[in-house]
Amino acid sequence: MTMPEIAPQLLQDCHYLGRLPATALLLHRNASLPWFILVPDTRLEDYLDLPSEHGCAVLADCVAVSGFIKNVLGFSKVNFAGLGNVVPQMHLHVIGRSAQDDCWPQPVWGNLQDGPPYALEQLQEWQMSLVRMLNLHPAELEV
Amino acid sequence: MTMPEIAPQLLQDCHYLGRLPATALLLHRNASLPWFILVPDTRLEDYLDLPSEHGCAVLADCVAVSGFIKNVLGFSKVNFAGLGNVVPQMHLHVIGRSAQDDCWPQPVWGNLQDGPPYALEQLQEWQMSLVRMLNLHPAELEV
Repeated sequence: MTMPEIAPQLLQDCHYLGRLPATALLLHRNASLPWFILVPDTRLEDYLDLPSEHGCAVLADCVAVSGFIKNVLGFSKVNFAGLGNVVPQMHLHVIGRSAQDDCWPQPVWGNLQDGPPYALEQLQEWQMSLVRMLNLHPAELEV
Repeated sequence: MTMPEIAPQLLQDCHYLGRLPATALLLHRNASLPWFILVPDTRLEDYLDLPSEHGCAVLADCVAVSGFIKNVLGFSKVNFAGLGNVVPQMHLHVIGRSAQDDCWPQPVWGNLQDGPPYALEQLQEWQMSLVRMLNLHPAELEV
């Protein structure tokens, strides 16, 4: 499948995992915590500017990814945000947090130290789970 | 009207403005930027754990507050987040941002310096607009 138009900075920071019903699904390269980024198909910049039907469809993708973080990865806390102060293209953060991560209880932006990268096997395993559970249309993975 | 049960730390940080259809509406006491906090009526802690109908109703309140920030207060950028790492009770942040604010482009949490308080007249004016435009059920204001 072809990749939708995604801001270069997001692609530099993230692995592109594939397509959910209403968003492109990215995973931040910092493997110290599960930090997913969802990119809706719109030229609007702020999430709260989306028309209600589109907003709820994007929300459903975020809810599904949060479920993956909690039910499969075993996290009990998820942070959710649409900021876009640095990269204007609309994108939503869905991030598994725990009291053991290196910037708890602060938000990750500007506070999370560089972490290890993902191994390709790990990415493949998560991607396969997301295909099974969330009906992700997978993209070809690059490390 | 009586105030719903809201965590003491939120009430300490914020003015309670009243009730929207699905949330209690608070305004952070730091008047250096318009920082609204919406508290849904639930015992769940993470926004993405809400059932879809409840999640979309809460989202509609956030969209309405974002519209107030943009259309009435004149901001072009709104940050939106549900974190809850410090105060577990579910609450959503809807914050007007600009390149002129003192922590741009960083998120406000942990980065925004103490600012001036709101004058009672300012709070009354915003509350009246919110009553007219968003059908806010107003609470008695305290400075």
